[in-house]
Amino acid sequence: MAELRKEPIAGRWVVITTDHPKGPSDYLPFKPPYRPQEPEGLCPFCRGSEGLTPKEIFSLNSEGKGWSVRVVPNKFPFFHIEGEFDRRGEGMYDVMEAIGAHEIVVEAPEHHQNLASMETDQIEKILIAYRERLIDLERDLRFQQFLILKNYPGVFNRHPHSHIIAMPVIPRRIDEEIWGTLDYYQRKERCIFCDIIKEEISVKKRVILETVHFLVFSPFASLFPFETWIIPKSHCPDFHRITEEEIGDLSAGIQSLFLCFYKLLSDPPYSLALHTSPVQSRFHRPEYHWHIETRLRIGLREGFEWGTGFFVNPTPPEDAAAFLRGVG
Amino acid sequence: MAELRKEPIAGRWVVITTDHPKGPSDYLPFKPPYRPQEPEGLCPFCRGSEGLTPKEIFSLNSEGKGWSVRVVPNKFPFFHIEGEFDRRGEGMYDVMEAIGAHEIVVEAPEHHQNLASMETDQIEKILIAYRERLIDLERDLRFQQFLILKNYPGVFNRHPHSHIIAMPVIPRRIDEEIWGTLDYYQRKERCIFCDIIKEEISVKKRVILETVHFLVFSPFASLFPFETWIIPKSHCPDFHRITEEEIGDLSAGIQSLFLCFYKLLSDPPYSLALHTSPVQSRFHRPEYHWHIETRLRIGLREGFEWGTGFFVNPTPPEDAAAFLRGVG
Repeated sequence: MAELRKEPIAGRWVVITTDHPKGPSDYLPFKPPYRPQEPEGLCPFCRGSEGLTPKEIFSLNSEGKGWSVRVVPNKFPFFHIEGEFDRRGEGMYDVMEAIGAHEIVVEAPEHHQNLASMETDQIEKILIAYRERLIDLERDLRFQQFLILKNYPGVFNRHPHSHIIAMPVIPRRIDEEIWGTLDYYQRKERCIFCDIIKEEISVKKRVILETVHFLVFSPFASLFPFETWIIPKSHCPDFHRITEEEIGDLSAGIQSLFLCFYKLLSDPPYSLALHTSPVQSRFHRPEYHWHIETRLRIGLREGFEWGTGFFVNPTPPEDAAAFLRGVG
Repeated sequence: MAELRKEPIAGRWVVITTDHPKGPSDYLPFKPPYRPQEPEGLCPFCRGSEGLTPKEIFSLNSEGKGWSVRVVPNKFPFFHIEGEFDRRGEGMYDVMEAIGAHEIVVEAPEHHQNLASMETDQIEKILIAYRERLIDLERDLRFQQFLILKNYPGVFNRHPHSHIIAMPVIPRRIDEEIWGTLDYYQRKERCIFCDIIKEEISVKKRVILETVHFLVFSPFASLFPFETWIIPKSHCPDFHRITEEEIGDLSAGIQSLFLCFYKLLSDPPYSLALHTSPVQSRFHRPEYHWHIETRLRIGLREGFEWGTGFFVNPTPPEDAAAFLRGVG
């Protein structure tokens, strides 16, 4: 299970998970390459191992060949769907249960595939799965914010997959983007993302490629080397309102970008985060502009933290302190 | 050289450096262990190689044995001391020169040393060097914020060293802490850090150790496994007002904590950041409470980013886009 604890000074919510395995031997050794090994045995995401995953939520089929994209619940979710928020104080601190959803999109039946090697019609199916799951999850009024996140290669399993996360609070990084967007709108009556798109198309030097509906570029104040954004050229706050035509066009753009990464940067590890407006009429922001951010990835877990400003910590500090005091 | 570019949506400043080597071969390959190798040849931080560093700024000597702690300018600074801010617009964006200071504290003459193996009087000397440098740098009215940062092992050189960084703007993470501190003070007329100290001493379960003047604990909403704070029990906004007695006590606390890490967590890599109030009367915050944060470290460069919310990016996005377009 997991709980949301509020960092009392800056007010950031932190997910503290308690069901990830973490005896003292799990802390040792902290040595390069710092990456967990792929578990031995059958991959639960491969065609033929469907019985090893929790019950399927959604799938898309290829004619005569079974499923080609599958959505299942994450076995070790950051946010869990059952239960009550149970908002409470703990001494001077604030805490609640981490209610939400955490689903895995298995992006292909084959273990060795990636966005650079897939056909565009496979990428289209992944995008359709994202869209259909968000449309369904939007009906749960407890959720304020969706995030789609992909780590390549996967941290615990190299089978191509991505995460759909529905959260009961708006994480800091998206909140910062929203306040920036509203502030700009108030001053100028214009979308800041639309202005950035115009600026980038006009000066060209940070553009990587352009499709009919999307711009792919390196942002002016990139936080990381080779940070890349994919953004729809027409204003739209919500990814899950994407049309069939836009999906076809976006999948071609994604394939081209990741082929660039693969060829020019020697198949680097990366994270991809899809930012979309909060949902529910109370939180929805028509001024926001959905987009995909990608960064090259070095290290473990930082993808989610980078994508959201929302940190996930598998070691409750009580356990850490007890272990460091030598009584763990 | 380096410039500060403002990320236009959330308003975060990003350092974009242009003098770090970065031809296409520097981007390749992005493969584990993702860490640069130690450069071959003489270590510029060892006793006897003093001629290989820029001109010494400060040092402390051991009787009859030469220097024991040395401060020199960083050869590849994030912030440079010479020049004008030259604040300007670039299209719709904001940019200025990254004016500041970036010094290296060489923590010992020996190459193989660390905070767990050092004598406390050596750690005292490091703390004195930090204090004396901040007192000196405070006289430069261009600087608003200091940060002391240590990565262990060092990213580019394993000789024990730390960074003193003087910045012309207050980075996002410290700004968030300050606003949280002021908000709490306004509501309660109390320091939130002092309240946290009382709470932690009272409930005990997140305390790792206590000295006469300092508390060492795992914060309630730890962002990372084994995140640990070292904080003075008496309210003080500024690290550089620390007394001799407190320095002696702190060095013993630091030695104990890093011995814990070394023994119980198998000599893990970590980052350490010292947060202190902004300087200059316009920015100084008497409500703030200086402290040290540590986290176990996985990955390259993320220490500074984590310590400040201030990202440093050695690849200007124009270069990244050109490279990805295949014209780099």
